Amino acid sequence: MGNDRRVGIIGVGCSKFGIRDELTVQELAFEAVKEAIQDAGITREDIELSVAGTAGTRSYELMPAVPINEYCGFAGKGPIRVEAACATGSAAVYTAYASVKAGIADIAIAIGFEKMNEVDTPTSLAVGGRSGSYLWEFHQYGTTFPGYYAMHASAHMARYGTTDKQLALVAVKNHRNAAKNPKAQFQKEISLEKAMSSRYVAYPLRLFDCSAITDGSSAAVIASEEKIKELGIDNAVWIEGVGYSSDTANMPKRTDYAGLKATVEASRMAYQMAGIEDPVKDLDVVALHDCFTIAEIMAYEDLGFCRKGEGGKFIENGDSDFGGKIPVNTFGGLKAKGHPLGATGVAMFYEIVKQLREEAKDLQVDLKTYKGLTHNIGGTGHFGWVFVLGV
Amino acid sequence: MGNDRRVGIIGVGCSKFGIRDELTVQELAFEAVKEAIQDAGITREDIELSVAGTAGTRSYELMPAVPINEYCGFAGKGPIRVEAACATGSAAVYTAYASVKAGIADIAIAIGFEKMNEVDTPTSLAVGGRSGSYLWEFHQYGTTFPGYYAMHASAHMARYGTTDKQLALVAVKNHRNAAKNPKAQFQKEISLEKAMSSRYVAYPLRLFDCSAITDGSSAAVIASEEKIKELGIDNAVWIEGVGYSSDTANMPKRTDYAGLKATVEASRMAYQMAGIEDPVKDLDVVALHDCFTIAEIMAYEDLGFCRKGEGGKFIENGDSDFGGKIPVNTFGGLKAKGHPLGATGVAMFYEIVKQLREEAKDLQVDLKTYKGLTHNIGGTGHFGWVFVLGV
Repeated sequence: MGNDRRVGIIGVGCSKFGIRDELTVQELAFEAVKEAIQDAGITREDIELSVAGTAGTRSYELMPAVPINEYCGFAGKGPIRVEAACATGSAAVYTAYASVKAGIADIAIAIGFEKMNEVDTPTSLAVGGRSGSYLWEFHQYGTTFPGYYAMHASAHMARYGTTDKQLALVAVKNHRNAAKNPKAQFQKEISLEKAMSSRYVAYPLRLFDCSAITDGSSAAVIASEEKIKELGIDNAVWIEGVGYSSDTANMPKRTDYAGLKATVEASRMAYQMAGIEDPVKDLDVVALHDCFTIAEIMAYEDLGFCRKGEGGKFIENGDSDFGGKIPVNTFGGLKAKGHPLGATGVAMFYEIVKQLREEAKDLQVDLKTYKGLTHNIGGTGHFGWVFVLGV
Repeated sequence: MGNDRRVGIIGVGCSKFGIRDELTVQELAFEAVKEAIQDAGITREDIELSVAGTAGTRSYELMPAVPINEYCGFAGKGPIRVEAACATGSAAVYTAYASVKAGIADIAIAIGFEKMNEVDTPTSLAVGGRSGSYLWEFHQYGTTFPGYYAMHASAHMARYGTTDKQLALVAVKNHRNAAKNPKAQFQKEISLEKAMSSRYVAYPLRLFDCSAITDGSSAAVIASEEKIKELGIDNAVWIEGVGYSSDTANMPKRTDYAGLKATVEASRMAYQMAGIEDPVKDLDVVALHDCFTIAEIMAYEDLGFCRKGEGGKFIENGDSDFGGKIPVNTFGGLKAKGHPLGATGVAMFYEIVKQLREEAKDLQVDLKTYKGLTHNIGGTGHFGWVFVLGV
């Protein structure tokens, strides 16, 4: 359906992730924007549309699109901010992509950013729980995100025998990768023993099963095939598949806690558009949403890398590691690179684009199909976005 | 540029505007969604993508897209929320439009909603001021929206001799129209004397120069030409022009306070796309952003209905009234129908679609060109959206 205008990514940027108290949110966003613009080899004046993505609930700037765009040089070009909880970055890339594909702009930028350490009161800390249904989940039961994913972990363990150790192995792998990523919040390895002996945050999830509170930004410049030719760019990474889904906010309405329907549906849509039949064979590298270790294990299954219930063995066998069946979160994942909500989804494009251009240095995978995938979840599957990229 | 897939509006809905304490935000949104779906003659299952638009800072639900979509029957189809301050509704329509034009969905819904009377503390009341630059405008100077537009009014009066009476005449016209609009928050006329003797909110703006705090929702169903033909719909209203802009958050950086650059630029872009050469001759009816009376007068000029500085005379001469040069805000405007931030922009589509389908009853204008315009501003020109619609 629709039109056959190809749309590609021509530049990516990513700030250092971590606690960035020294910067305003504008300055933080610019760190990624500057890199993306330089990476594309264009000037800021070339940008026709800027889409700002931020969850925006933990910063003083409640509606930061305007100050961000002004500071980054897009004062006249930033008419829209998007939000999809922790999948905000993907929704920003989507909006820029759709605008270019529709022919409304020929070149657009998606900027994802989040300052999560700026507002720090009990009220702000509760915001995570308010991303779902305020009335039924947060207000009535006080559920916050570790609690939500702890329910998923309990269900997965009970039904499939997934172990503490398998959860911890996800953290160990992602920290090992992040140790080689200069943009990562935690550039250090952790031992299996350390992960498995850390304190419980929400049983069965321990401290090292959880991603952290991160400040960060990322940006992607997106252009039409005509514009890419006009600019003489020869290393564009094409957006070949787009999939989205969403799901009920009421956890009691879910029929299954051992997986995320939003992942299944969004990936199915993206695979169909991109012609992916067997993701393990057809994809070289994957950035997926490991906000908690159980989330990575569930995503192996829900994205079709293994059968339902075999995600624990998938990590244990090294199937998602370098040299395994399909390297996952080579950059350290949300777990160890960090998870600045609005930036996270855009930063997945940064990492996959670097891989597909063979610029990932110490973290480079072997390329065979020259295709990669991003998988970004908001809430506990409240929002789901999957993209297939290729060169 | 781009593709030539035509995109049309096939159904519109709008809740009663006002103080809607009896409803949750989900129920409020559904009031508009139900009407839009019925108006389109489709079922909820036909919708492939739902875009939620809400400023969202004055309600308990901080990230309401998920509960809204679930309640309205789009639990799997709502991957994105958009925000552009008071222009949020237009940004939501835009995102749905771009998705259909890009061929990602064949039929999409934009849902704009806002419960503004739910959170009511001094902190929440300050949110309006935080839509600009928190650090420089709200935190340092405490500026809120009546103050911003009072600066515009002062500048316009000083340079062009615009009068108190001309401002008040905007309120009188829009209340007169709202009196006949069953969806309006204020279904009553006001006298010129009443408007001109009301108390000052921010000099020179009086109480009746300001729009109110409103709960409301609106929805628009948007489809591709192929889908419209397939459904056998013969009263689609086509989106013929789209224009956007944005502007600096730092008011001291503005070079001119007597108008909004975002309006000029967004309308120029939309006029070019739609082939509008003389808006007064080429358009039959206009919904424009009268959050304050001075905003309507500036918009007459910035949209090209009259020369700069002549907006005061334009209202005084009746040029924007029924039977005048170009009827503006026939539905009562933000001033008297109400201004529920995220709903406002979508509700403009509701009103213009009703006009172009000749279903506006007591408020129907005479149609000659069968074209209309929506103009939606966020902040004081921080965001600007203009659409040209036609049948």
